[in-house]
Amino acid sequence: MNRPKIVILGAGYGGIMTAVRLQKDLKVDEADVVLVNKHNYHYQTTWLHENAAGTLHHDKTRIPIADCISKSKTTFVQDTVVKVVPDEKRVILANGELTYDYLVVGLGFESETFGIKGLKEHAFSISSINAARMIREHIEYQFAVYNNEKERRDERLTLIVGGAGFTGIEFVGELANRVPQLCKEYDIPREKVRIINVEAAPTALPGFDPELVEYAMNLLESKGVEFKIGTMIKECTPEGIVVEKDEKVEEIKASTVVWAAGVRGSDIVDESGFETMRGRVKVRKDMRDPNRDEVFIVGDCALIINEETNRPYPPTAQIAIQQASTVSHNLTSLIRGKQELETFTPDLKGTVASLGEGEAIGVIFGNKKIFGRTASMMKKVIDNRYLMMLGGIPMVLKKGKLKMF
Amino acid sequence: MNRPKIVILGAGYGGIMTAVRLQKDLKVDEADVVLVNKHNYHYQTTWLHENAAGTLHHDKTRIPIADCISKSKTTFVQDTVVKVVPDEKRVILANGELTYDYLVVGLGFESETFGIKGLKEHAFSISSINAARMIREHIEYQFAVYNNEKERRDERLTLIVGGAGFTGIEFVGELANRVPQLCKEYDIPREKVRIINVEAAPTALPGFDPELVEYAMNLLESKGVEFKIGTMIKECTPEGIVVEKDEKVEEIKASTVVWAAGVRGSDIVDESGFETMRGRVKVRKDMRDPNRDEVFIVGDCALIINEETNRPYPPTAQIAIQQASTVSHNLTSLIRGKQELETFTPDLKGTVASLGEGEAIGVIFGNKKIFGRTASMMKKVIDNRYLMMLGGIPMVLKKGKLKMF
Repeated sequence: MNRPKIVILGAGYGGIMTAVRLQKDLKVDEADVVLVNKHNYHYQTTWLHENAAGTLHHDKTRIPIADCISKSKTTFVQDTVVKVVPDEKRVILANGELTYDYLVVGLGFESETFGIKGLKEHAFSISSINAARMIREHIEYQFAVYNNEKERRDERLTLIVGGAGFTGIEFVGELANRVPQLCKEYDIPREKVRIINVEAAPTALPGFDPELVEYAMNLLESKGVEFKIGTMIKECTPEGIVVEKDEKVEEIKASTVVWAAGVRGSDIVDESGFETMRGRVKVRKDMRDPNRDEVFIVGDCALIINEETNRPYPPTAQIAIQQASTVSHNLTSLIRGKQELETFTPDLKGTVASLGEGEAIGVIFGNKKIFGRTASMMKKVIDNRYLMMLGGIPMVLKKGKLKMF
Repeated sequence: MNRPKIVILGAGYGGIMTAVRLQKDLKVDEADVVLVNKHNYHYQTTWLHENAAGTLHHDKTRIPIADCISKSKTTFVQDTVVKVVPDEKRVILANGELTYDYLVVGLGFESETFGIKGLKEHAFSISSINAARMIREHIEYQFAVYNNEKERRDERLTLIVGGAGFTGIEFVGELANRVPQLCKEYDIPREKVRIINVEAAPTALPGFDPELVEYAMNLLESKGVEFKIGTMIKECTPEGIVVEKDEKVEEIKASTVVWAAGVRGSDIVDESGFETMRGRVKVRKDMRDPNRDEVFIVGDCALIINEETNRPYPPTAQIAIQQASTVSHNLTSLIRGKQELETFTPDLKGTVASLGEGEAIGVIFGNKKIFGRTASMMKKVIDNRYLMMLGGIPMVLKKGKLKMF
């Protein structure tokens, strides 16, 4: 019974895929694998904006962990990670603790508010299933209240999204599709509703090809989205936001503000004595912590520099999933006594941003730009491919996006 | 063009059925009929508790006025009645005014809070489509927020219904069916949720046979409803309610308080110089205002004393619908120059209170007690019968409760 014990913290993209890969890579009895997660489900962070807008039910986004892992190969512990004590190879949980021989840290992201006043208190963040369904209900409740007040308060129908990056744009796209449904449900004229997307950078979708950006903005504007580009959010209050552009300060009243402009790694990683930058560990090429040979970091908590651009790779699902393969491969090697570990190299297959049902933009095969229904279909192919890796055809059939056209 | 002009105020049960009956009773060109209503839809007040609980969509409860009346026979004006000036045979609307030769007042009910402190400000009332869907969303939002707070506040999951009369009991029955769905949707253990029904009288369903009351209470208790009978609500606060029983005062924290314990007639009737008692006019036997030969009152604003019991008849849909026939008949007589008018006599066919899907209690044929699925089916038959009178078979098919068993 002297098998090494691998503990995986977090069942996000990186954590769950590490567990799934280990089930294939390791032989029976080579190691004990324990997966720890706060909830008994895994969820697709990249779909949460649809749950938050109310265009997709969250049960489609989450997957029972029991459906992903095999009980006989992986032990699942439902608990909240409080802290890691790497010097003692110990993990403190809310309701107990665990020791490990090897640790995989996949504790995900938190919202990064860059110190903007009031954002933490008054803005929502699309960070979990719980948060997403609260945002959905919050928005719906504002619409439901509107016609009940003697003095109509139009700010109830103003939806502000902070950030026109990937997540911000995708969320705005879903909102633009959702709002007409809400107007019908609550007898509200569409023109009373404002969807405002605020971005501090000089362009929406910074980093994307200008042609794609233009396509996205034109499409979303045609659905009634207002863009405020090159505009800083100075403060978020219970009444709305204060923005500044060209030294002009403006207050925008809104009952709903969703912050979708920045993520950082996990507080827990920060507080556990790892060397971090905003919750991220700059890992070695083999995905290990620079100072600890038995600790791997995966997903949003891992920082890897793209040597071509000298900037960090973005914290995407695609990269987390690929890292999981490397982590599983290297863990297997270590357990088998091999010291030569694989180097992680991201294989960027493309990026597709959805703009609401049936519409998207993106780049595939390195430089091919795609638009509209083609891009939307490609997005679904990517999503279904992940489900295939995670749980095979049954999972694609259960949770996949199968309405292709 | 010297046709008499009949103006009907309100498209509730009494108003809309008066319009529908007049379309049959009057010959073409005998009169101009104008129906005024705040919304472009009629709704079934007796179903609103289902919309408020979230067990039935409000679009099933409301019916476009255009589907009930014939444009060539009745003119529909969508506007809000501000005041009637009976001395001048004039009605002031929010956006205009109307004159009449004959007036039918069917302005419905308002919530009666009996001066209980804070009820008007902090409790909901199931009084309209707008209010019902707001209650539904308010409750759902509390469930959605619950798991997002670091310190769980169980009062978010406490639902208080003031009044265990007909409406209170029916609403509690729907809530008992809805809560397990909400628990599933938001990952909340059922035992965290409380449904508390508070009644000042010494029994639930005062006026009902004790055997029926016992059946109803047992059934609802088995679904987790807590009754506080013989308990006065002393105050409603933003945090919940303060109750008193046997001189013991208790505070119950709750994010949702719905007041379902009393109705009165319309404020507008009070303020228009009619002789009223709590918004109701004690009408003559022919349904006319005691002082004005050209004004009929129908529905919740009409007060009729049951001579057998010397108490007013309750303001029910059944009675309002029957009154509409009398009003239409008498209007037709007046227009044709007949001075002998029909006397209104209620024909009480029975009372059935629903206790959630598939369950009900009631009395039919004067004294036959019915329970369970039989009573539930009878309730649906009554509901469908009304739709049949209102719009024939097409309306029964569109809006009826057709799942009988």
